[in-house]
Amino acid sequence: MMTFVEKLEEAIEINNSRVCVGLDIDINKMPGVYKDEYLSLPRALCNNLEVMEEDLEIARKKAEIIFAFAKDIIDATKEVACIYKPQAAYYESQGVAGEIAIRLIVQYILEECDQPALYDAKRGDIDRTAEQYALAILEDSTGKKFEALTVNSYMGGEAVMPFTKYPNKGVIVLCRPSNPTAGEMCRVRLESGEYYFEYVARKAVEEWNKNGNVALVVGAVSEHLPREDVESCRRIGPQIFFLIPGIGAQPGILKDTVEAAKGPFFINSSSGITHASSGPDYKEKAHESSTKLRDDINKYLR
Amino acid sequence: MMTFVEKLEEAIEINNSRVCVGLDIDINKMPGVYKDEYLSLPRALCNNLEVMEEDLEIARKKAEIIFAFAKDIIDATKEVACIYKPQAAYYESQGVAGEIAIRLIVQYILEECDQPALYDAKRGDIDRTAEQYALAILEDSTGKKFEALTVNSYMGGEAVMPFTKYPNKGVIVLCRPSNPTAGEMCRVRLESGEYYFEYVARKAVEEWNKNGNVALVVGAVSEHLPREDVESCRRIGPQIFFLIPGIGAQPGILKDTVEAAKGPFFINSSSGITHASSGPDYKEKAHESSTKLRDDINKYLR
Repeated sequence: MMTFVEKLEEAIEINNSRVCVGLDIDINKMPGVYKDEYLSLPRALCNNLEVMEEDLEIARKKAEIIFAFAKDIIDATKEVACIYKPQAAYYESQGVAGEIAIRLIVQYILEECDQPALYDAKRGDIDRTAEQYALAILEDSTGKKFEALTVNSYMGGEAVMPFTKYPNKGVIVLCRPSNPTAGEMCRVRLESGEYYFEYVARKAVEEWNKNGNVALVVGAVSEHLPREDVESCRRIGPQIFFLIPGIGAQPGILKDTVEAAKGPFFINSSSGITHASSGPDYKEKAHESSTKLRDDINKYLR
Repeated sequence: MMTFVEKLEEAIEINNSRVCVGLDIDINKMPGVYKDEYLSLPRALCNNLEVMEEDLEIARKKAEIIFAFAKDIIDATKEVACIYKPQAAYYESQGVAGEIAIRLIVQYILEECDQPALYDAKRGDIDRTAEQYALAILEDSTGKKFEALTVNSYMGGEAVMPFTKYPNKGVIVLCRPSNPTAGEMCRVRLESGEYYFEYVARKAVEEWNKNGNVALVVGAVSEHLPREDVESCRRIGPQIFFLIPGIGAQPGILKDTVEAAKGPFFINSSSGITHASSGPDYKEKAHESSTKLRDDINKYLR
């Protein structure tokens, strides 16, 4: 059985691509045919035993719509993506329907795609709780058998180890996020002289990566994220994979990002691909925008 | 409509208690009658459309078992608790069954209890993603209408504001966790001289609490958490509520904790109450252990 990193490296090689397709499905941005059908169905709260059967039936129907749209996007980007990354919040916000949908989606990726499936969940909790999250996200038993997840390491090694102990799974530690307010928490200067995110990077690289399955979230260069931050993470982990958000909806600068990240990395685009169009051309646009991102990255890689 | 803080204060007053009952339901620690029935049911992965109906039927049955047990614990502690806190991971690890169960549980707390319902989810992500989490956890539309949640602020104000903008909801920022490895990430000394968790506390108190609905997670005093850490958080936020974990399964020292936290706080116990016994006396034991904790806290409060 291939490890997460091996599968990722193979997908990068085969598709000559470092594009991560972020499956952040926003119901209101789905193409008309799916959106209208979805919104015509009643809410399904699944919090009342007396109408549970009806609610579950509605949830199932809604899940099938989300899944059908996700399948379209996956099929349209299969030859361009190196990894698929559904974001947990977009499924959780659809209640039980979303929970069913994400299971159908991850199963489809596992069965039909060569790319690994990464759950962007940013979980982080004490050891026995993290073990429950590992069961929830990485194991057969719950129907959500992802090959990797993102984690938040604020509770220390205890919050990370329950995931890294699966040698074949990937554990991507939130290190230097790309959003405008990230700097106020991660770019705080320590007594030692380094930034807090550099401390996180060192912990991840030096202590938590015993199984060689740890990666880092390191955002794209932008007005909020100086190039030196990416370069510094690369110095700390010369061989470690970066998941790079912040290109697309967020105004990252691709050229600087690719140059600074040089080494193993992949770059995410979510709504820029998945919701590139809400019109009938949504599949073509998803294919086009992912292909363009792939080519742009490759241009700067040379 | 009462705010989260008002409802919490009223529950503390009425029950003369600062006990938070942590509903971290571990299937394997449920009393025999529930556990055996649960484990006799097949897995319900809900990731295959061809057997979805059967899977959902099984998930529903499993959810009813978890709910029945939770109801027993809630009923047994209703006169002693000031708040109920289900931990997300324990429901997520049970797949769709857990997702249904948590909806039944929160609905029961909302309808039958005077205590607020707090979701221990430690979510933290960029603004539009955090908005999806808010929908998932705080809104009517998904069946999981909690009155408060725990959040992780590593992505800055952007990760916190989508929750605090609900003035009636409580937002509890992870500040000084109690687990053994928390110190390595939060007790890092900054250039300014303060610890990182003190910086988090100041951000929460001074910047994110505009609606008066922010609280802090501040762990119990223990060999891993010096009393000065609790005192320091109290100095930074004299009027802010503390959710205090680390008593019970974790070996916190109650007397020091209560003295150092003086001001608004509540103390969580999860397995120490919910799984106080796996025998037929589990309701009595849950009542006993929550009552004992209430009385011990009150003793030190005098």
